[in-house]
Amino acid sequence: MKKVHVELGQRSYDILIAPHLLGQAPELFRKHGIGSRMFLVANTTVFQLYGQPLVERLRGSGFRVTEIFIPDGEKFKNLHTVENIYTYLIAQRADRSSTIAALGGGVTGDIAGFVAATFLRGIPYLQIPTTVLSQVDSSVGGKTGVNHPHGKNMIGVFYQPSLVCVDTDTLNTLNEREYRSGLYEVLKYGLIYDESFFDYLLEHLDGLLERRSEVLEPVIGRCCEIKAEVTTIDEKEAGLRRILNFGHTFGHALEVVAGFQGITHGEAVGYGMLAANRLSLRLGLLGEREVQRIHDAILRLGPLPNVDHLAVDRLLEAMERDKKRQDDQKVFVLLKDIGTTEMQSNIDDKTISEIWKEVLPLPQA
Amino acid sequence: MKKVHVELGQRSYDILIAPHLLGQAPELFRKHGIGSRMFLVANTTVFQLYGQPLVERLRGSGFRVTEIFIPDGEKFKNLHTVENIYTYLIAQRADRSSTIAALGGGVTGDIAGFVAATFLRGIPYLQIPTTVLSQVDSSVGGKTGVNHPHGKNMIGVFYQPSLVCVDTDTLNTLNEREYRSGLYEVLKYGLIYDESFFDYLLEHLDGLLERRSEVLEPVIGRCCEIKAEVTTIDEKEAGLRRILNFGHTFGHALEVVAGFQGITHGEAVGYGMLAANRLSLRLGLLGEREVQRIHDAILRLGPLPNVDHLAVDRLLEAMERDKKRQDDQKVFVLLKDIGTTEMQSNIDDKTISEIWKEVLPLPQA
Repeated sequence: MKKVHVELGQRSYDILIAPHLLGQAPELFRKHGIGSRMFLVANTTVFQLYGQPLVERLRGSGFRVTEIFIPDGEKFKNLHTVENIYTYLIAQRADRSSTIAALGGGVTGDIAGFVAATFLRGIPYLQIPTTVLSQVDSSVGGKTGVNHPHGKNMIGVFYQPSLVCVDTDTLNTLNEREYRSGLYEVLKYGLIYDESFFDYLLEHLDGLLERRSEVLEPVIGRCCEIKAEVTTIDEKEAGLRRILNFGHTFGHALEVVAGFQGITHGEAVGYGMLAANRLSLRLGLLGEREVQRIHDAILRLGPLPNVDHLAVDRLLEAMERDKKRQDDQKVFVLLKDIGTTEMQSNIDDKTISEIWKEVLPLPQA
Repeated sequence: MKKVHVELGQRSYDILIAPHLLGQAPELFRKHGIGSRMFLVANTTVFQLYGQPLVERLRGSGFRVTEIFIPDGEKFKNLHTVENIYTYLIAQRADRSSTIAALGGGVTGDIAGFVAATFLRGIPYLQIPTTVLSQVDSSVGGKTGVNHPHGKNMIGVFYQPSLVCVDTDTLNTLNEREYRSGLYEVLKYGLIYDESFFDYLLEHLDGLLERRSEVLEPVIGRCCEIKAEVTTIDEKEAGLRRILNFGHTFGHALEVVAGFQGITHGEAVGYGMLAANRLSLRLGLLGEREVQRIHDAILRLGPLPNVDHLAVDRLLEAMERDKKRQDDQKVFVLLKDIGTTEMQSNIDDKTISEIWKEVLPLPQA
């Protein structure tokens, strides 16, 4: 078992990563101080796969578990779902010692984490992420929240869990596209922070694509470590944490213009990294050889979906509105080497437009 | 000007207390790092009294201020009002550098603080409390939140402001009952924490009731100091902070059974302190002489409204449901001296019932 300790003073917590981790859930929860009264939030698909056996195991060990089912999908990540959970918690007499456990992907974690953060001004929160993206990204760093009809993730708070349990076996039931989508974020960690991890990923790519436990545990573990390091230094996104947005300024625009249809978040980040890579070349930060290496690595995780129908003008508009702007400037995270980032703002629209045209349409690998 | 520094590491902030403080608002805000883009949340009553001149003064000094009006009253302290504010903030392009300013009483602060805490995962928050209760209680300690149809303050987070500006002149427009209601909480601070402050209050009670600036500044200041001390030691209500609930276990039941009609929060706390005082006597913690002194002091802030029509059985039921219970035990904050508290749980219903009967009906002072 790999263990990553996230040091945040009184709000410190551990991330445990291993295959078949849920089989030891009762002992692990107790060892990490999780109380016996638990509300398990999941959608019915994930619940049938992993929730039912987990609940039975916990109940058999003296935990008192109540299931809270939420509808599946980003469109239900809103205040309405949150209110329904509050109402249920009150009806079931949840109190400050009750734990909210999120079993599922990023949407489940974002919703359940926001509820845990805001119910009775914060109750204990346990994360059991079951997708690549949630295991390496959304379950570390404390971001919780929901969408507003006029904007994604507009409502939320930073709130740290008491424990994160990553069972890499849960990745086995993801469909191929969802699984590969998560790997773009995995690759991102190598690109922005750790060249030797980037090399490791390329060397073990076959094992990673085949979801072998002996590759998944160290890979997911290293991603969590990097994200924990970055978000510990910069808990509230004032500085360093921005490097995690590598590929996201471009990628988010793709998602918005596509109406979050036909492209996954990970794939959008894949495109976004291709674009940020080209921009790094254009600005003279990276040499041709490195750019090609990065480009090839991203494409090896593919295929990326066809997005040729998206107009570059609309992508530029979407970037303009991007809430991640700072002082009305778009800040781009670029690479000056594999493993090393540099921030640049004041990139003119003409350049961005040309970068988009270089990336779209994409020559398929 | 009195200044209370609340030391909470990176989340430290100052509370400024003085008459006519709002006259210097632009300079004070700048000096304390408040940004120039501001959303001022107030109800129309308070806005007409203090908001309009404040906004004009700020605009004249280069601040860009947008007013957000909320309906007046506790019944609007809910997620619906919060959602309306989110929508407005997004429409007005508020960003992470915008400040939410709350001008008004506790309800305004609770709502605006919750919005500031949860919009874009937290944006700067400035408090300008205009009632006794909000100046000495709700504006210090970081509690924010709204009610759920099934329970008061069920939804919320701890979130610290960037600055608290207490202009004691704003108390002059409170009606007599509202003003006196706040004084019960003022007296509470002496009772639970500082005997010499209790003595000072009794010595200067005439000046306090006449709202003289030279009494208000040190009195409000000392209350803020005590609340800041207590909540700094125990930010998340794990231990010491409970002493602030003195009078509240009994008082909250009164409010609930009265349906929050005909009795103010402060008056309920007044009754609650009378009851906690009697219970302290009953358990042998306080002597007859001290109990009488405390009793008389509370009554001097009166008159308390008649609540004889409330049935003791229903008060007991309400206490049973009180969310402030710990491990299904009611915890009572009692006095073992003026300025010194003691916690006790396991008090049987018969005793509580007798205490209620001793306190209600109340021989008017």
